[in-house]
Amino acid sequence: MTNLPKNQIIIDGLEYCNWNREILEDLWNGGVTAVHTTLVYWEDTQESFNKISEFENLIKENSDIICHAKKTQDILDAKKNNKVAFIFGFQNSAPIANNIFLIEKFFNRGLRFMQLTYNNQTPLAGGCFEEKDSGVSRFGKAVIEEMNNLGMIVDLSHAGKVTCLDAIKFSKKPVAISHANPSFFHQSLRNIDNDVLLALVNKDGFIGLSLYPYHLKDNGNCKIEDFCSMIKELINLIGTDNIGIGSDLCLNWPDEVVMWMRNGKWTKEIDYGESKDKNIKWPKQPHWYQKPSNITNLFEAMCKNGIKEQIALKIIGTNWFNFMKTHF
Amino acid sequence: MTNLPKNQIIIDGLEYCNWNREILEDLWNGGVTAVHTTLVYWEDTQESFNKISEFENLIKENSDIICHAKKTQDILDAKKNNKVAFIFGFQNSAPIANNIFLIEKFFNRGLRFMQLTYNNQTPLAGGCFEEKDSGVSRFGKAVIEEMNNLGMIVDLSHAGKVTCLDAIKFSKKPVAISHANPSFFHQSLRNIDNDVLLALVNKDGFIGLSLYPYHLKDNGNCKIEDFCSMIKELINLIGTDNIGIGSDLCLNWPDEVVMWMRNGKWTKEIDYGESKDKNIKWPKQPHWYQKPSNITNLFEAMCKNGIKEQIALKIIGTNWFNFMKTHF
Repeated sequence: MTNLPKNQIIIDGLEYCNWNREILEDLWNGGVTAVHTTLVYWEDTQESFNKISEFENLIKENSDIICHAKKTQDILDAKKNNKVAFIFGFQNSAPIANNIFLIEKFFNRGLRFMQLTYNNQTPLAGGCFEEKDSGVSRFGKAVIEEMNNLGMIVDLSHAGKVTCLDAIKFSKKPVAISHANPSFFHQSLRNIDNDVLLALVNKDGFIGLSLYPYHLKDNGNCKIEDFCSMIKELINLIGTDNIGIGSDLCLNWPDEVVMWMRNGKWTKEIDYGESKDKNIKWPKQPHWYQKPSNITNLFEAMCKNGIKEQIALKIIGTNWFNFMKTHF
Repeated sequence: MTNLPKNQIIIDGLEYCNWNREILEDLWNGGVTAVHTTLVYWEDTQESFNKISEFENLIKENSDIICHAKKTQDILDAKKNNKVAFIFGFQNSAPIANNIFLIEKFFNRGLRFMQLTYNNQTPLAGGCFEEKDSGVSRFGKAVIEEMNNLGMIVDLSHAGKVTCLDAIKFSKKPVAISHANPSFFHQSLRNIDNDVLLALVNKDGFIGLSLYPYHLKDNGNCKIEDFCSMIKELINLIGTDNIGIGSDLCLNWPDEVVMWMRNGKWTKEIDYGESKDKNIKWPKQPHWYQKPSNITNLFEAMCKNGIKEQIALKIIGTNWFNFMKTHF
């Protein structure tokens, strides 16, 4: 096994887990330094504030191994104190409704990532599942400016292509796509075309590569070698500095939650999202990426598959850290 | 003065007033049978339910002259009982956020009109002030279907052009533009192009003509003769059955409210809406349309300006009534 340097920072740029002690210990034992964790996506303002309180309690109850990061310095401190830093994120803008003043309220409670959209259109922008993508709206522009000023990362995962290009153009600070893969690897509404990747990186933006089965070639049967080949191709396209992991691991949820994730309360009919066979269960994860600590599997596989160790180390954490440092 | 037939129904298809006894008595003395009254536009779910309670109280406190119409039969009963019927409407979809199940809850409290958008983009559709109009979104389609099923009128005032055309196409029931004028009368982001008017009427849709100064030729100096000429031209274009009045009278509000109307909480910078000279006051109404009862001025002027009395009577009420009857 390739040894990880002792001071190496490992960051997962997105997980959506129903956290319990067992998963937290896996993170901790696996040496993960920080995780951008999803709190909500369809939830409204009050539900989102409540969720923040729940996460604050979770952190308090497990303060021997986790802590809440509001600044990148907190991630360095977590490393020093042998803890896992949680970075709060929303996978939608539903919590702010049409109220720009709520962004700062959420920021003050520790929110550091917010997606403009979650599949569907919002007052801010167009979602990747919409037939027509509006791009960034009047309110969306005001929100991006406010997020830039506060130091909250604009996350374009689940956004449409026009929205991605608009947000990259309008944002004064680099934006992220925290969890998605290049379309050249696997064609999916959630994955990202080369022209968007190039525009993103041209403005110092960032992509976290996803391990969610519907974003992978051959879905849950995706081979780790193919994933590594994709990374190499991506490096050829955009270089080595703007790539990280955003595993999109969704652990410990009942099957109802995958339907809530797709349908929220926006439709009375069932929407199956990217599941072509009307599967209403969570899709099967690749055997080599089942839990947060498996990010080290990926590190080893990258090294074995022709990616230099120094670059693989950047991809499993250093790049995310440097990107976050430009924001908070 | 031309006499109005005793059994004539007079309907104003939109007013946004800060109701007090004086304005209610003007409605009542003026012989107005029913008013579609705006409750909210930027307000969220809870604020909107609260506003319904306020209106229920207003009606209770003035039950000698006003009542709440939930069915068109209630409008006929109001006429018989010498009362003014209030029909509740929202000038935005903000109250339902991203929750389709809220529509029925609001319907059960008496809501009978809802706009998909108010100038800005919503999760449902594109607003008339947006640079790019998304048209009707996935959620928007689901909402229109639900409104059709319940018997709530889809109101396209303040929507973008693509959204209007989409909604006209997708809705199984005729839709309304409750308060706007044809663009040929006055070019404005809020007014309606001929192709939209033709598509609207082709699906039995309805337009309520607005007396809001920014929708009028020469704004507050608009001549009543010019307004009547516009009606004649509109009749030539779309016939006599699908036209009513939606005066958009905004009475008894302090100037702060015009800024709330334009800015809600969506921007930290001031947006001046359609006021080219950065006016932060309510615009001046034409001298001939200052209060709800002035709808009879308009009736007389139509008759004097070459519109047959039978048609003028349809425009001041019968048409709206027949249109509403197809919904509730």
